[in-house]
Amino acid sequence: MTFETSVQVRFAHVDPAGIVFYPRYLEMLNGAVEDWFALELGMDFKTLHLERRIGVPTVKLDVQFLAPSELGDQLTISVEPRKIGRSSCGLDVVFSGSGRERLRAEVVLVCMDLKDRRAIAWPRELGEKIERQVAAPRAPTALCTTVSPG
Amino acid sequence: MTFETSVQVRFAHVDPAGIVFYPRYLEMLNGAVEDWFALELGMDFKTLHLERRIGVPTVKLDVQFLAPSELGDQLTISVEPRKIGRSSCGLDVVFSGSGRERLRAEVVLVCMDLKDRRAIAWPRELGEKIERQVAAPRAPTALCTTVSPG
Amino acid sequence: MTFETSVQVRFAHVDPAGIVFYPRYLEMLNGAVEDWFALELGMDFKTLHLERRIGVPTVKLDVQFLAPSELGDQLTISVEPRKIGRSSCGLDVVFSGSGRERLRAEVVLVCMDLKDRRAIAWPRELGEKIERQVAAPRAPTALCTTVSPG
Amino acid sequence: MTFETSVQVRFAHVDPAGIVFYPRYLEMLNGAVEDWFALELGMDFKTLHLERRIGVPTVKLDVQFLAPSELGDQLTISVEPRKIGRSSCGLDVVFSGSGRERLRAEVVLVCMDLKDRRAIAWPRELGEKIERQVAAPRAPTALCTTVSPG
Repeated sequence: MTFETSVQVRFAHVDPAGIVFYPRYLEMLNGAVEDWFALELGMDFKTLHLERRIGVPTVKLDVQFLAPSELGDQLTISVEPRKIGRSSCGLDVVFSGSGRERLRAEVVLVCMDLKDRRAIAWPRELGEKIERQVAAPRAPTALCTTVSPG
Repeated sequence: MTFETSVQVRFAHVDPAGIVFYPRYLEMLNGAVEDWFALELGMDFKTLHLERRIGVPTVKLDVQFLAPSELGDQLTISVEPRKIGRSSCGLDVVFSGSGRERLRAEVVLVCMDLKDRRAIAWPRELGEKIERQVAAPRAPTALCTTVSPG
Repeated sequence: MTFETSVQVRFAHVDPAGIVFYPRYLEMLNGAVEDWFALELGMDFKTLHLERRIGVPTVKLDVQFLAPSELGDQLTISVEPRKIGRSSCGLDVVFSGSGRERLRAEVVLVCMDLKDRRAIAWPRELGEKIERQVAAPRAPTALCTTVSPG
Repeated sequence: MTFETSVQVRFAHVDPAGIVFYPRYLEMLNGAVEDWFALELGMDFKTLHLERRIGVPTVKLDVQFLAPSELGDQLTISVEPRKIGRSSCGLDVVFSGSGRERLRAEVVLVCMDLKDRRAIAWPRELGEKIERQVAAPRAPTALCTTVSPG
Protein backbone atom coordinates (compact mmCIF):
# COMPACT_ATOMS: atom_id res chain seq x y z
CA MET A 1 0.00 0.00 0.00
CA THR A 2 1.41 3.33 -1.02
CA PHE A 3 1.21 6.50 1.00
CA GLU A 4 1.58 9.81 -0.81
CA THR A 5 2.44 13.26 0.39
CA SER A 6 3.62 16.34 -1.45
CA VAL A 7 6.14 19.11 -1.13
CA GLN A 8 7.00 22.25 -3.02
CA VAL A 9 10.59 23.08 -3.88
CA ARG A 10 11.46 26.16 -1.86
CA PHE A 11 14.17 28.77 -2.18
CA ALA A 12 15.80 27.14 0.85
CA HIS A 13 16.17 23.83 -1.03
CA VAL A 14 17.98 25.12 -4.10
CA ASP A 15 21.72 25.35 -4.63
CA PRO A 16 23.84 27.78 -6.65
CA ALA A 17 23.46 25.48 -9.66
CA GLY A 18 19.71 26.15 -9.61
CA ILE A 19 18.63 22.65 -8.56
CA VAL A 20 17.68 20.99 -5.29
CA PHE A 21 20.76 20.44 -3.09
CA TYR A 22 20.59 16.73 -2.33
CA PRO A 23 20.74 16.91 1.48
CA ARG A 24 17.54 18.98 1.21
CA TYR A 25 15.89 16.09 -0.68
CA LEU A 26 16.71 13.92 2.31
CA GLU A 27 15.12 16.41 4.70
CA MET A 28 12.01 16.16 2.51
CA LEU A 29 12.30 12.36 2.56
CA ASN A 30 12.50 12.38 6.34
CA GLY A 31 9.42 14.61 6.41
CA ALA A 32 7.55 12.15 4.19
CA VAL A 33 8.40 9.30 6.55
CA GLU A 34 7.20 11.52 9.41
CA ASP A 35 3.89 12.03 7.55
CA TRP A 36 3.62 8.29 6.90
CA PHE A 37 3.99 7.54 10.60
CA ALA A 38 1.47 10.21 11.60
CA LEU A 39 -1.16 9.76 8.91
CA GLU A 40 -0.87 6.11 7.91
CA LEU A 41 0.39 4.40 11.07
CA GLY A 42 -1.41 6.74 13.47
CA MET A 43 1.73 7.51 15.47
CA ASP A 44 3.11 11.01 15.16
CA PHE A 45 6.80 11.64 15.80
CA LYS A 46 6.06 13.73 18.88
CA THR A 47 4.23 10.88 20.60
CA LEU A 48 6.78 8.35 19.35
CA HIS A 49 9.86 10.27 20.46
CA LEU A 50 8.73 12.24 23.50
CA GLU A 51 6.12 9.95 25.07
CA ARG A 52 7.13 6.48 23.93
CA ARG A 53 10.84 7.39 23.92
CA ILE A 54 11.30 5.48 20.67
CA GLY A 55 13.35 6.69 17.72
CA VAL A 56 13.41 5.37 14.17
CA PRO A 57 16.87 6.20 12.84
CA THR A 58 17.74 5.46 9.24
CA VAL A 59 20.44 2.79 9.03
CA LYS A 60 20.62 2.33 5.28
CA LEU A 61 19.83 4.58 2.40
CA ASP A 62 20.27 3.87 -1.30
CA VAL A 63 19.30 6.77 -3.51
CA GLN A 64 19.28 7.35 -7.23
CA PHE A 65 18.85 10.95 -8.32
CA LEU A 66 17.08 10.56 -11.65
CA ALA A 67 16.26 14.11 -12.68
CA PRO A 68 16.92 17.50 -11.12
CA SER A 69 14.18 19.56 -9.47
CA GLU A 70 13.95 23.31 -9.61
CA LEU A 71 12.56 26.18 -7.57
CA GLY A 72 8.77 26.02 -7.51
CA ASP A 73 8.42 22.39 -8.62
CA GLN A 74 5.54 20.53 -6.99
CA LEU A 75 6.77 17.08 -5.98
CA THR A 76 4.80 14.03 -4.93
CA ILE A 77 6.55 11.69 -2.54
CA SER A 78 5.32 8.10 -2.31
CA VAL A 79 6.27 5.89 0.60
CA GLU A 80 5.75 2.15 0.34
CA PRO A 81 6.80 -0.33 3.03
CA ARG A 82 8.23 -3.41 1.37
CA LYS A 83 9.62 -5.44 4.25
CA ILE A 84 9.35 -5.60 8.01
CA GLY A 85 11.67 -7.35 10.41
CA ARG A 86 11.60 -7.67 14.17
CA SER A 87 13.03 -4.18 14.62
CA SER A 88 13.59 -2.93 11.09
CA CYS A 89 11.48 -1.73 8.22
CA GLY A 90 12.36 -1.29 4.54
CA LEU A 91 10.66 1.46 2.58
CA ASP A 92 10.61 2.33 -1.13
CA VAL A 93 10.36 6.06 -1.63
CA VAL A 94 9.84 7.81 -4.95
CA PHE A 95 9.83 11.56 -5.64
CA SER A 96 8.11 12.64 -8.82
CA GLY A 97 6.78 15.78 -10.44
CA SER A 98 5.19 16.61 -13.78
CA GLY A 99 5.08 12.90 -14.56
CA ARG A 100 8.82 12.49 -14.18
CA GLU A 101 10.61 10.57 -11.46
CA ARG A 102 13.20 12.69 -9.69
CA LEU A 103 14.53 10.33 -7.04
CA ARG A 104 14.16 6.71 -6.00
CA ALA A 105 15.28 5.60 -2.58
CA GLU A 106 15.40 2.43 -0.55
CA VAL A 107 15.42 3.26 3.12
CA VAL A 108 15.88 0.99 6.12
CA LEU A 109 14.69 2.26 9.48
CA VAL A 110 15.31 0.67 12.83
CA CYS A 111 13.12 0.88 15.90
CA MET A 112 15.34 2.11 18.72
CA ASP A 113 14.92 2.63 22.43
CA LEU A 114 16.05 6.24 22.93
CA LYS A 115 17.25 5.65 26.49
CA ASP A 116 19.97 3.12 25.75
CA ARG A 117 20.06 3.45 21.96
CA ARG A 118 19.44 -0.21 21.30
CA ALA A 119 17.30 -1.74 18.59
CA ILE A 120 14.05 -3.08 19.99
CA ALA A 121 11.12 -4.96 18.52
CA TRP A 122 8.41 -2.78 16.98
CA PRO A 123 5.64 -2.02 19.47
CA ARG A 124 2.86 -4.42 18.55
CA GLU A 125 0.37 -1.88 17.19
CA LEU A 126 3.00 -0.33 14.94
CA GLY A 127 4.41 -3.65 13.77
CA GLU A 128 0.97 -4.97 12.87
CA LYS A 129 0.06 -1.90 10.90
CA ILE A 130 3.30 -1.97 8.94
CA GLU A 131 2.82 -5.70 8.24
CA ARG A 132 -0.64 -5.12 6.84
CA GLN A 133 0.74 -2.45 4.56
CA VAL A 134 3.56 -4.66 3.35
CA ALA A 135 1.03 -7.38 2.57
CA ALA A 136 -1.49 -5.11 0.81
CA PRO A 137 -1.37 -5.22 -2.96
CA ARG A 138 0.39 -2.24 -4.40
CA ALA A 139 -1.95 0.24 -5.92
CA PRO A 140 -1.12 1.09 -9.49
CA THR A 141 0.75 4.24 -8.69
CA ALA A 142 -0.61 7.62 -9.57
CA LEU A 143 2.50 8.19 -11.59
CA CYS A 144 1.63 5.54 -14.13
CA THR A 145 -1.73 7.10 -14.77
CA THR A 146 -0.81 10.74 -14.78
CA VAL A 147 2.15 10.70 -17.10
CA SER A 148 1.16 13.08 -19.82
CA PRO A 149 1.77 12.03 -23.40
CA GLY A 150 3.69 15.23 -24.11
CA MET B 1 44.84 7.40 -2.71
CA THR B 2 42.81 8.56 0.23
CA PHE B 3 42.05 12.16 1.10
CA GLU B 4 41.11 13.00 4.67
CA THR B 5 39.34 15.95 6.19
CA SER B 6 37.66 16.42 9.54
CA VAL B 7 34.56 17.90 11.04
CA GLN B 8 33.18 18.44 14.50
CA VAL B 9 29.59 17.55 15.34
CA ARG B 10 27.83 20.84 16.01
CA PHE B 11 24.64 21.71 17.82
CA ALA B 12 23.13 22.41 14.39
CA HIS B 13 23.73 18.78 13.32
CA VAL B 14 22.00 17.03 16.19
CA ASP B 15 18.37 15.95 16.35
CA PRO B 16 15.96 15.65 19.27
CA ALA B 17 17.16 12.07 19.79
CA GLY B 18 20.63 13.42 20.60
CA ILE B 19 22.38 12.10 17.49
CA VAL B 20 23.36 13.52 14.12
CA PHE B 21 20.30 14.00 11.90
CA TYR B 22 21.25 12.10 8.75
CA PRO B 23 20.68 14.89 6.20
CA ARG B 24 23.32 16.82 8.16
CA TYR B 25 25.79 13.94 7.61
CA LEU B 26 25.20 14.42 3.90
CA GLU B 27 25.92 18.14 4.15
CA MET B 28 29.21 17.14 5.82
CA LEU B 29 29.81 14.59 3.06
CA ASN B 30 29.24 17.24 0.41
CA GLY B 31 31.68 19.48 2.25
CA ALA B 32 34.30 16.70 2.25
CA VAL B 33 33.90 16.28 -1.52
CA GLU B 34 34.27 20.07 -1.81
CA ASP B 35 37.52 19.87 0.17
CA TRP B 36 38.72 16.97 -1.99
CA PHE B 37 38.19 19.00 -5.16
CA ALA B 38 39.91 22.07 -3.71
CA LEU B 39 42.81 20.47 -1.88
CA GLU B 40 43.47 17.28 -3.81
CA LEU B 41 42.35 18.08 -7.35
CA GLY B 42 43.31 21.77 -7.18
CA MET B 43 39.90 22.95 -8.35
CA ASP B 44 37.78 24.75 -5.78
CA PHE B 45 33.99 24.78 -6.15
CA LYS B 46 33.92 28.52 -6.75
CA THR B 47 36.17 28.27 -9.78
CA LEU B 48 34.43 25.11 -10.96
CA HIS B 49 30.90 26.46 -10.67
CA LEU B 50 31.24 30.19 -11.29
CA GLU B 51 34.13 30.38 -13.73
CA ARG B 52 34.07 27.03 -15.50
CA ARG B 53 30.27 26.76 -15.22
CA ILE B 54 30.59 23.08 -14.35
CA GLY B 55 28.61 21.30 -11.64
CA VAL B 56 29.21 17.90 -10.10
CA PRO B 57 25.80 16.71 -8.93
CA THR B 58 25.49 13.46 -7.04
CA VAL B 59 23.52 10.91 -9.06
CA LYS B 60 23.83 7.90 -6.79
CA LEU B 61 24.34 7.54 -3.09
CA ASP B 62 24.45 4.35 -1.05
CA VAL B 63 24.93 4.93 2.64
CA GLN B 64 25.19 2.69 5.66
CA PHE B 65 24.86 4.41 9.01
CA LEU B 66 27.00 2.22 11.23
CA ALA B 67 27.07 4.03 14.55
CA PRO B 68 25.49 7.23 15.80
CA SER B 69 27.49 10.41 16.37
CA GLU B 70 26.86 12.86 19.17
CA LEU B 71 27.33 16.54 19.91
CA GLY B 72 31.03 17.37 20.11
CA ASP B 73 32.33 14.24 18.37
CA GLN B 74 35.38 14.82 16.20
CA LEU B 75 34.90 12.96 12.92
CA THR B 76 37.40 12.15 10.21
CA ILE B 77 36.02 11.86 6.71
CA SER B 78 38.02 9.93 4.14
CA VAL B 79 37.33 10.29 0.43
CA GLU B 80 38.73 7.74 -1.98
CA PRO B 81 38.05 7.75 -5.71
CA ARG B 82 37.56 4.17 -6.89
CA LYS B 83 36.39 4.55 -10.48
CA ILE B 84 36.32 7.16 -13.17
CA GLY B 85 34.24 7.17 -16.34
CA ARG B 86 34.01 9.65 -19.19
CA SER B 87 31.78 11.95 -17.17
CA SER B 88 31.28 10.15 -13.87
CA CYS B 89 33.32 9.39 -10.79
CA GLY B 90 32.74 6.89 -8.00
CA LEU B 91 33.92 7.72 -4.50
CA ASP B 92 34.14 5.70 -1.30
CA VAL B 93 33.56 7.87 1.72
CA VAL B 94 33.98 6.82 5.34
CA PHE B 95 33.19 8.83 8.46
CA SER B 96 34.90 7.71 11.62
CA GLY B 97 35.61 8.93 15.10
CA SER B 98 37.28 7.49 18.19
CA GLY B 99 38.34 4.51 16.08
CA ARG B 100 34.78 3.63 15.17
CA GLU B 101 33.23 3.87 11.74
CA ARG B 102 30.05 5.91 11.76
CA LEU B 103 29.06 5.92 8.11
CA ARG B 104 30.15 4.33 4.84
CA ALA B 105 29.00 5.75 1.56
CA GLU B 106 29.43 5.05 -2.11
CA VAL B 107 28.85 8.19 -4.08
CA VAL B 108 28.64 8.69 -7.84
CA LEU B 109 29.15 12.21 -9.17
CA VAL B 110 28.61 13.38 -12.70
CA CYS B 111 30.39 16.20 -14.47
CA MET B 112 27.68 18.53 -15.78
CA ASP B 113 27.59 21.59 -17.98
CA LEU B 114 25.61 24.09 -15.87
CA LYS B 115 24.25 25.94 -18.89
CA ASP B 116 22.28 23.11 -20.45
CA ARG B 117 22.47 20.62 -17.57
CA ARG B 118 23.99 17.84 -19.65
CA ALA B 119 26.68 15.40 -18.63
CA ILE B 120 30.00 16.26 -20.22
CA ALA B 121 33.42 14.64 -20.24
CA TRP B 122 35.68 15.61 -17.35
CA PRO B 123 37.94 18.53 -18.26
CA ARG B 124 41.29 16.93 -19.05
CA GLU B 125 43.23 18.25 -16.05
CA LEU B 126 40.53 17.07 -13.64
CA GLY B 127 40.06 13.70 -15.32
CA GLU B 128 43.79 12.98 -15.29
CA LYS B 129 44.14 13.84 -11.63
CA ILE B 130 41.23 11.65 -10.66
CA GLU B 131 42.61 8.80 -12.77
CA ARG B 132 45.97 8.98 -11.05
CA GLN B 133 44.23 8.83 -7.68
CA VAL B 134 42.15 5.84 -8.70
CA ALA B 135 45.30 4.06 -9.83
CA ALA B 136 47.38 4.91 -6.75
CA PRO B 137 47.70 2.15 -4.21
CA ARG B 138 45.46 2.71 -1.25
CA ALA B 139 47.31 3.84 1.78
CA PRO B 140 46.70 1.71 4.79
CA THR B 141 44.06 3.94 6.29
CA ALA B 142 44.69 5.78 9.50
CA LEU B 143 41.69 4.02 10.90
CA CYS B 144 43.26 0.58 10.74
CA THR B 145 46.20 1.70 12.75
CA THR B 146 44.47 3.84 15.32
CA VAL B 147 41.69 1.54 16.39
CA SER B 148 42.22 1.20 20.07
CA PRO B 149 41.88 -2.21 21.63
CA GLY B 150 39.41 -0.93 24.20
CA MET C 1 -3.52 43.64 5.40
CA THR C 2 -2.25 40.47 6.94
CA PHE C 3 -1.32 37.33 5.06
CA GLU C 4 -1.30 34.03 6.94
CA THR C 5 0.32 30.73 6.22
CA SER C 6 1.04 27.76 8.43
CA VAL C 7 3.78 25.28 9.14
CA GLN C 8 4.21 22.21 11.28
CA VAL C 9 7.28 21.77 13.46
CA ARG C 10 9.18 18.84 11.96
CA PHE C 11 11.83 16.54 13.33
CA ALA C 12 14.31 18.41 11.09
CA HIS C 13 13.58 21.69 12.91
CA VAL C 14 14.22 20.55 16.45
CA ASP C 15 17.49 20.72 18.34
CA PRO C 16 18.96 18.48 21.06
CA ALA C 17 17.23 20.67 23.66
CA GLY C 18 13.87 19.59 22.22
CA ILE C 19 12.88 22.97 20.78
CA VAL C 20 13.05 24.59 17.36
CA PHE C 21 16.63 25.52 16.47
CA TYR C 22 16.37 29.21 15.63
CA PRO C 23 17.98 29.13 12.16
CA ARG C 24 15.14 26.72 11.24
CA TYR C 25 12.60 29.37 12.33
CA LEU C 26 14.25 31.68 9.82
CA GLU C 27 13.94 29.08 7.06
CA MET C 28 10.22 28.95 7.91
CA LEU C 29 10.10 32.76 7.89
CA ASN C 30 11.71 32.83 4.46
CA GLY C 31 9.15 30.28 3.29
CA ALA C 32 6.32 32.47 4.59
CA VAL C 33 7.69 35.46 2.67
CA GLU C 34 7.90 33.18 -0.39
CA ASP C 35 4.22 32.27 0.10
CA TRP C 36 3.31 35.95 0.52
CA PHE C 37 4.95 36.82 -2.77
CA ALA C 38 3.29 33.92 -4.59
CA LEU C 39 -0.18 34.01 -3.10
CA GLU C 40 -0.68 37.65 -2.15
CA LEU C 41 1.47 39.56 -4.63
CA GLY C 42 0.97 37.10 -7.49
CA MET C 43 4.70 36.71 -8.14
CA ASP C 44 6.24 33.37 -7.25
CA PHE C 45 9.94 33.17 -6.45
CA LYS C 46 10.65 31.07 -9.55
CA THR C 47 9.30 33.75 -11.89
CA LEU C 48 10.89 36.51 -9.82
CA HIS C 49 14.36 34.95 -9.65
CA LEU C 50 14.66 32.94 -12.85
CA GLU C 51 12.61 34.96 -15.32
CA ARG C 52 12.73 38.50 -13.98
CA ARG C 53 16.25 38.01 -12.55
CA ILE C 54 15.24 39.86 -9.40
CA GLY C 55 16.16 38.84 -5.87
CA VAL C 56 14.73 40.05 -2.58
CA PRO C 57 17.51 39.57 -0.03
CA THR C 58 16.89 40.33 3.61
CA VAL C 59 18.99 43.28 4.75
CA LYS C 60 17.70 43.69 8.29
CA LEU C 61 16.15 41.29 10.71
CA ASP C 62 15.08 41.97 14.30
CA VAL C 63 13.68 38.92 16.03
CA GLN C 64 12.32 38.27 19.48
CA PHE C 65 11.91 34.63 20.41
CA LEU C 66 8.99 34.75 22.81
CA ALA C 67 8.22 31.12 23.53
CA PRO C 68 9.79 27.85 22.41
CA SER C 69 8.11 25.54 19.90
CA GLU C 70 8.23 21.77 20.02
CA LEU C 71 8.04 18.82 17.66
CA GLY C 72 4.56 18.58 16.17
CA ASP C 73 3.42 22.12 17.00
CA GLN C 74 1.19 23.69 14.38
CA LEU C 75 2.31 27.27 13.84
CA THR C 76 0.58 30.11 12.04
CA ILE C 77 2.82 32.68 10.45
CA SER C 78 1.39 36.11 9.71
CA VAL C 79 3.12 38.50 7.31
CA GLU C 80 2.14 42.14 7.27
CA PRO C 81 3.84 44.78 5.13
CA ARG C 82 4.18 47.97 7.13
CA LYS C 83 6.33 50.19 4.96
CA ILE C 84 7.48 50.39 1.39
CA GLY C 85 10.34 52.45 0.00
CA ARG C 86 11.65 52.84 -3.52
CA SER C 87 13.51 49.54 -3.34
CA SER C 88 12.84 48.26 0.18
CA CYS C 89 9.95 46.78 2.07
CA GLY C 90 9.42 46.36 5.81
CA LEU C 91 7.42 43.39 7.05
CA ASP C 92 6.09 42.45 10.46
CA VAL C 93 6.08 38.70 10.93
CA VAL C 94 4.53 36.83 13.84
CA PHE C 95 4.67 33.09 14.54
CA SER C 96 2.02 31.77 16.87
CA GLY C 97 0.53 28.47 17.94
CA SER C 98 -2.11 27.39 20.46
CA GLY C 99 -2.90 31.07 21.06
CA ARG C 100 0.63 31.88 22.10
CA GLU C 101 3.09 34.03 20.21
CA ARG C 102 6.37 32.25 19.59
CA LEU C 103 8.34 34.79 17.59
CA ARG C 104 8.00 38.39 16.42
CA ALA C 105 10.19 39.69 13.64
CA GLU C 106 10.72 42.89 11.74
CA VAL C 107 12.21 42.13 8.37
CA VAL C 108 13.50 44.52 5.71
CA LEU C 109 13.82 43.19 2.18
CA VAL C 110 15.46 44.92 -0.74
CA CYS C 111 14.62 44.55 -4.38
CA MET C 112 17.84 43.60 -6.15
CA ASP C 113 18.91 43.15 -9.74
CA LEU C 114 20.53 39.70 -9.70
CA LYS C 115 22.91 40.48 -12.55
CA ASP C 116 24.86 43.28 -10.93
CA ARG C 117 23.55 42.88 -7.35
CA ARG C 118 22.36 46.45 -7.04
CA ALA C 119 19.20 47.67 -5.35
CA ILE C 120 16.59 48.66 -7.91
CA ALA C 121 13.12 50.20 -7.67
CA TRP C 122 10.29 47.70 -7.22
CA PRO C 123 8.77 46.68 -10.54
CA ARG C 124 5.59 48.76 -10.80
CA GLU C 125 3.07 45.94 -10.43
CA LEU C 126 4.82 44.63 -7.30
CA GLY C 127 5.30 48.04 -5.76
CA GLU C 128 1.65 48.97 -6.25
CA LYS C 129 0.41 45.76 -4.69
CA ILE C 130 2.65 46.15 -1.67
CA GLU C 131 1.55 49.79 -1.27
CA ARG C 132 -2.09 48.80 -1.26
CA GLN C 133 -1.37 46.23 1.42
CA VAL C 134 0.51 48.71 3.56
CA ALA C 135 -2.42 51.12 3.29
CA ALA C 136 -5.13 48.54 4.02
CA PRO C 137 -6.47 48.53 7.56
CA ARG C 138 -5.07 45.72 9.60
CA ALA C 139 -7.48 42.95 10.22
CA PRO C 140 -8.01 42.16 13.86
CA THR C 141 -5.68 39.20 13.99
CA ALA C 142 -6.93 35.74 14.67
CA LEU C 143 -4.56 35.62 17.60
CA CYS C 144 -6.31 38.33 19.56
CA THR C 145 -9.54 36.43 19.50
CA THR C 146 -8.24 32.95 20.17
CA VAL C 147 -6.03 33.56 23.16
CA SER C 148 -7.48 31.35 25.81
CA PRO C 149 -7.94 32.80 29.29
CA GLY C 150 -5.94 29.96 30.84
CA MET D 1 37.53 41.07 24.85
CA THR D 2 36.90 39.77 21.39
CA PHE D 3 36.94 36.12 20.39
CA GLU D 4 37.50 35.26 16.75
CA THR D 5 36.76 32.18 14.73
CA SER D 6 36.54 31.61 11.02
CA VAL D 7 34.41 29.82 8.49
CA GLN D 8 34.47 29.21 4.77
CA VAL D 9 31.40 29.73 2.64
CA ARG D 10 30.39 26.29 1.41
CA PHE D 11 28.22 25.12 -1.45
CA ALA D 12 25.63 24.19 1.19
CA HIS D 13 25.38 27.84 2.33
CA VAL D 14 24.67 29.45 -1.01
CA ASP D 15 21.28 30.14 -2.55
CA PRO D 16 20.12 30.24 -6.16
CA ALA D 17 21.01 33.95 -6.26
CA GLY D 18 24.66 32.99 -5.68
CA ILE D 19 24.96 34.44 -2.18
CA VAL D 20 24.77 33.03 1.34
CA PHE D 21 21.16 32.19 2.27
CA TYR D 22 20.65 34.10 5.50
CA PRO D 23 19.47 31.22 7.70
CA ARG D 24 22.86 29.63 6.91
CA TYR D 25 24.60 32.74 8.29
CA LEU D 26 22.71 32.12 11.52
CA GLU D 27 23.88 28.51 11.63
CA MET D 28 27.43 29.88 11.31
CA LEU D 29 26.66 32.43 14.04
CA ASN D 30 25.43 29.68 16.32
CA GLY D 31 28.62 27.75 15.57
CA ALA D 32 30.71 30.79 16.52
CA VAL D 33 28.90 31.09 19.84
CA GLU D 34 29.53 27.36 20.34
CA ASP D 35 33.25 27.96 19.71
CA TRP D 36 33.23 30.93 22.12
CA PHE D 37 31.75 28.76 24.88
CA ALA D 38 34.22 25.94 24.25
CA LEU D 39 37.41 27.87 23.62
CA GLU D 40 36.94 31.07 25.57
CA LEU D 41 34.67 30.07 28.45
CA GLY D 42 36.00 26.53 28.74
CA MET D 43 32.56 24.96 28.57
CA ASP D 44 31.76 23.01 25.42
CA PHE D 45 28.13 22.58 24.34
CA LYS D 46 28.26 18.83 24.95
CA THR D 47 29.16 19.26 28.61
CA LEU D 48 26.77 22.18 28.97
CA HIS D 49 23.77 20.46 27.40
CA LEU D 50 24.26 16.78 28.18
CA GLU D 51 26.03 16.85 31.55
CA ARG D 52 24.94 20.12 33.10
CA ARG D 53 21.52 20.01 31.39
CA ILE D 54 21.75 23.70 30.64
CA GLY D 55 20.76 25.31 27.35
CA VAL D 56 21.53 28.79 26.08
CA PRO D 57 18.70 29.64 23.69
CA THR D 58 18.77 32.87 21.74
CA VAL D 59 15.92 35.15 22.82
CA LYS D 60 16.73 38.23 20.78
CA LEU D 61 18.55 38.71 17.54
CA ASP D 62 19.08 41.96 15.63
CA VAL D 63 20.97 41.50 12.40
CA GLN D 64 22.08 43.81 9.66
CA PHE D 65 23.24 42.15 6.45
CA LEU D 66 25.80 44.62 5.15
CA ALA D 67 27.30 42.89 2.14
CA PRO D 68 26.65 39.56 0.46
CA SER D 69 29.07 36.64 0.73
CA GLU D 70 29.81 34.17 -2.03
CA LEU D 71 30.93 30.59 -2.47
CA GLY D 72 34.50 30.18 -1.26
CA ASP D 73 34.69 33.39 0.79
CA GLN D 74 36.75 33.09 3.97
CA LEU D 75 34.88 34.81 6.77
CA THR D 76 36.07 35.84 10.21
CA ILE D 77 33.47 35.89 12.93
CA SER D 78 34.14 37.98 16.02
CA VAL D 79 32.15 37.46 19.20
CA GLU D 80 32.25 40.09 21.91
CA PRO D 81 30.21 39.93 25.11
CA ARG D 82 28.93 43.41 25.92
CA LYS D 83 26.55 42.83 28.82
CA ILE D 84 25.75 40.16 31.36
CA GLY D 85 22.65 39.85 33.50
CA ARG D 86 21.63 37.33 36.09
CA SER D 87 20.59 34.82 33.44
CA SER D 88 21.17 36.64 30.16
CA CYS D 89 24.13 37.67 28.07
CA GLY D 90 24.37 40.17 25.22
CA LEU D 91 26.88 39.55 22.44
CA ASP D 92 28.05 41.64 19.52
CA VAL D 93 28.89 39.49 16.54
CA VAL D 94 30.53 40.67 13.34
CA PHE D 95 31.19 38.66 10.17
CA SER D 96 33.82 40.04 7.87
CA GLY D 97 35.92 38.96 4.94
CA SER D 98 38.47 40.64 2.67
CA GLY D 99 38.32 43.68 4.92
CA ARG D 100 34.60 44.14 4.43
CA GLU D 101 31.92 43.66 7.05
CA ARG D 102 29.23 41.29 5.89
CA LEU D 103 26.94 41.08 8.90
CA ARG D 104 26.54 42.72 12.30
CA ALA D 105 24.40 41.10 14.94
CA GLU D 106 23.33 41.76 18.49
CA VAL D 107 22.41 38.54 20.17
CA VAL D 108 20.86 37.93 23.57
CA LEU D 109 21.22 34.46 25.06
CA VAL D 110 19.51 33.16 28.16
CA CYS D 111 20.77 30.51 30.52
CA MET D 112 18.03 27.89 30.75
CA ASP D 113 17.45 24.79 32.82
CA LEU D 114 16.69 22.14 30.19
CA LYS D 115 14.49 20.09 32.51
CA ASP D 116 11.79 22.66 33.16
CA ARG D 117 12.79 25.22 30.51
CA ARG D 118 13.11 28.10 32.95
CA ALA D 119 15.70 30.84 32.95
CA ILE D 120 18.26 30.30 35.70
CA ALA D 121 21.23 32.27 36.97
CA TRP D 122 24.51 31.60 35.17
CA PRO D 123 26.55 28.91 36.92
CA ARG D 124 29.15 30.85 38.87
CA GLU D 125 32.21 29.83 36.85
CA LEU D 126 30.51 30.77 33.58
CA GLY D 127 29.10 34.04 34.89
CA GLU D 128 32.45 35.14 36.25
CA LYS D 129 34.25 34.41 33.02
CA ILE D 130 31.69 36.29 30.95
CA GLU D 131 31.88 39.25 33.37
CA ARG D 132 35.64 39.45 33.04
CA GLN D 133 35.28 39.49 29.26
CA VAL D 134 32.67 42.21 29.34
CA ALA D 135 34.97 44.30 31.51
CA ALA D 136 38.12 43.74 29.46
CA PRO D 137 39.08 46.56 27.11
CA ARG D 138 38.22 45.77 23.53
CA ALA D 139 41.19 44.86 21.46
CA PRO D 140 41.60 46.91 18.35
CA THR D 141 39.96 44.47 16.00
CA ALA D 142 41.90 42.63 13.35
CA LEU D 143 39.58 44.20 10.82
CA CYS D 144 40.92 47.68 11.40
CA THR D 145 44.39 46.58 10.58
CA THR D 146 43.69 44.34 7.63
CA VAL D 147 41.45 46.59 5.59
CA SER D 148 43.24 46.90 2.32
CA PRO D 149 43.48 50.32 0.73
CA GLY D 150 41.97 49.09 -2.52
